[in-house]
Amino acid sequence: MSDYLEPGARVGILGGGQLGRMLAMAAARLGLDAVIFAPEHDSPASRVAAETIVAEYDDLDAVARFAGSVSAVTYEFENVPVATAEAAAAEAPVRPGPKALEVAQDRLVEKTFLNDHAAPTVAFENAESAAEARAAFETLGGPAILKTRRFGYDGKGQAVVRSAEEAGAAFDEIGGHPAILEAFADFRREISIVAARDVEGHVAAYPVSENLHGEGILRECAAPARADAAVVAEAERIAATLLEALDYVGVIAVELFELDDGKLLVNEIAPRVHNTGHWTMDACACSQFEQHIRAVAGWGLGDPAPHSAARMINLIGDEANAWKRWLAHDDAVLHLYGKRGVRPGRKMGHVNILSRLP
Amino acid sequence: MSDYLEPGARVGILGGGQLGRMLAMAAARLGLDAVIFAPEHDSPASRVAAETIVAEYDDLDAVARFAGSVSAVTYEFENVPVATAEAAAAEAPVRPGPKALEVAQDRLVEKTFLNDHAAPTVAFENAESAAEARAAFETLGGPAILKTRRFGYDGKGQAVVRSAEEAGAAFDEIGGHPAILEAFADFRREISIVAARDVEGHVAAYPVSENLHGEGILRECAAPARADAAVVAEAERIAATLLEALDYVGVIAVELFELDDGKLLVNEIAPRVHNTGHWTMDACACSQFEQHIRAVAGWGLGDPAPHSAARMINLIGDEANAWKRWLAHDDAVLHLYGKRGVRPGRKMGHVNILSRLP
Repeated sequence: MSDYLEPGARVGILGGGQLGRMLAMAAARLGLDAVIFAPEHDSPASRVAAETIVAEYDDLDAVARFAGSVSAVTYEFENVPVATAEAAAAEAPVRPGPKALEVAQDRLVEKTFLNDHAAPTVAFENAESAAEARAAFETLGGPAILKTRRFGYDGKGQAVVRSAEEAGAAFDEIGGHPAILEAFADFRREISIVAARDVEGHVAAYPVSENLHGEGILRECAAPARADAAVVAEAERIAATLLEALDYVGVIAVELFELDDGKLLVNEIAPRVHNTGHWTMDACACSQFEQHIRAVAGWGLGDPAPHSAARMINLIGDEANAWKRWLAHDDAVLHLYGKRGVRPGRKMGHVNILSRLP
Repeated sequence: MSDYLEPGARVGILGGGQLGRMLAMAAARLGLDAVIFAPEHDSPASRVAAETIVAEYDDLDAVARFAGSVSAVTYEFENVPVATAEAAAAEAPVRPGPKALEVAQDRLVEKTFLNDHAAPTVAFENAESAAEARAAFETLGGPAILKTRRFGYDGKGQAVVRSAEEAGAAFDEIGGHPAILEAFADFRREISIVAARDVEGHVAAYPVSENLHGEGILRECAAPARADAAVVAEAERIAATLLEALDYVGVIAVELFELDDGKLLVNEIAPRVHNTGHWTMDACACSQFEQHIRAVAGWGLGDPAPHSAARMINLIGDEANAWKRWLAHDDAVLHLYGKRGVRPGRKMGHVNILSRLP
C-alpha cells in the first residue's frame, strides 16, 4: 500500500457508468491504467479501461481481488455498500474514504452532519413510519418534500406533500423506507461548487456553476456563474469546511440553494465527480476528472482556473439523437457515453459550449 | 459497408501506439467503440480501447476479421503494408485510402507526387545502388542527405554526406536499400500544417505550428506560429491541393521548410494524425484526433480555430521522469502514453502549455 502512485500504476474504479468512463480516460491520459469493477457486462467505462472485473458489489472476494490488483481505489457513485468499501480498503487506499460514503448515503446523516459543520440546510424531520411522516409535516408545515433517506437519485424516491395525510400516504408510496421530510427552500437559484482536496490537505475549488433542473434531473449548467463575491466566498468556505471535516481525498460536489438575500443552504453533497462539473472538461486545463485522479493517485492538485466560460447541456434520453446538430456547432464539444439503449430520463451524453471568459 | 457511422458503431485502428491511443479516446468521447489491431500485447492503445486484436499485420485473415467487425478502418502509421490495407478495404472503408499510403511510404514516390501537384520540395535524386548514390551526389552537389526510400522515421535510416564517396559508403551503411539523395534546404525554420478533409470534400486546416527538432526527433511546437499571412495562405493552399489530389479522408500533416524569402518547400507528408498537431488537444474545441475520427466516421469536420495558444513539448526518453514538475505547472496539460519501458529517443508523452491567444 503506497500513498503515491507512479505512472504505469493501476487505479481501480467502482462503477461502470459515464463518470467511471470519464475518470478512466483522465487516468489514461496521465499514464495510469484504469481497472473498472462493475456488475454489468459491456459497461460504458469498460470500453475505455485497461481491464474490467464484472462482479456484483456484494461479491466481496471479487472486490478484494480487484482492490488487491490496483494501487488505489475510487468510485463513481456514492451508494457503494459499506461492506464493499471495507473489503477494498483492506487491500488498497480507498479515496474518498468511508466517512464520506457514510455521510452521503443517508439524507438524515448527511443533513445532520452538514448542520454540525456550519453548512446550513433546509429544516428537516426524520420519518421512519407513515405516522412519523404525518407528525413531521405537522412540525415543519408545508408544502414539503418527503424523500427516502437512502438510494435516491435524479429525483427518484421523492414526493411533494401538501398535508399531513399526503405525507403519510407518500411514505408508503415511495416504498415504506426510512425517509426525511424537508421544508421547501424559497431559493432564487441553484448553484454548485466542485472542489477537491489532496492527501496533504490542499484544497482547490472550481468556479461556482449555476444549474437548471427539470423533472429532478440536471439539464444545464453555466460556469463560471455570475455571482456576488460574497456568495462565491461562502460556497468556497462551505466546501473547504466539509472537505476538512471528512478528511476527504478527491473531488466533492456541493449543491447549494442561493436565497434571495444571498444566503446559501446546502441541498446535498456528492462524494465524487459530478454532473455540474462536466463543464470543466473543456473549459479548464485540469478537468474535475483529472483533478479527482490526481488526488486519488496521491498527487498534487491542478489549477482549477478556467481558460474559457462554458454552458453544459445534458443530452437526456432521445435528446442525444441531436448529436449531429451539436457536432456542427463550432463552439460545442460533444461527449457521448456509449450507452447501448436510449431510455427516457437516461443521461446519454452532454455538450460543452465554450465562450470567452467575460 | 456504410459511409456514415452512428454513435455506438465500431471504428478500427491499425496500430497500438500513442496515436492509436489518442484516436481511441477521441472516438470514445464521440460515442464510438475503438477496436485496435496491433502485433504487440498490452499496447498503449489497447488499454483505452473497447477491443484489441493482437496479430501480425501480414496475418491477412486476422486483418479481414478485424475489418469485418468494424464500420470503418483507419491507421496510426503510414507504413501499413499495402496488402494489409487491401485486405481491410475488402471489408470496410479504409480512410485515408490506399493512394495516401502508396505516396507516403516511398520518399521517391512522395517527392515526385508533391512536385507534380504544385508542392515544391528540395531537389532530389533516386539512388538504387552505391554507384547511383555517388552519381546522385555529383548531380546535386553537397552536402546532401541520403535517406532510405521506405520505413524511415524520427531521423532513422538517414545520413548526411559531404562527398560522392561518402554517399556511396552511406548507401551501404543505411542498409543497401533503395534510397534518395536530397539537397539541403537552406531554411529559416520548420513549420507544419495539420488539415483534414471529410467524405464530402470539405477541408479544414488548423493554424500553422512552428516546430523544433533535435537529433531528428520533434522536440517542441509553438502554435499558432507567428507567420506572414502569405505564408499561412500558401501552407493552406498546399494542404488543400494535396488533400484533393489524394481524394483524402481524414487528417494529414504537411511538414514544411520556410525559406528566407518566405517560400515554402514540403519536407514530407504524413497521412495520419501527427505529433505537430498534439497542441490541438488542449487548445481547440475539436482536436486533430476528434477531427480525424469525424472524417473517418463520415461526419462533418469541426472548427479548427483554437481558443488558446499552446506550446507543445515532447517528453522523450527519461524526460518523462519530470512528469511531477509538469503536473505542478498551472497552465500545462500532461499526456503520458502508458509505455512500459523508457528508452532513449522513445516518445513517452507530451505537455501542452496553454496561454491566451495574442
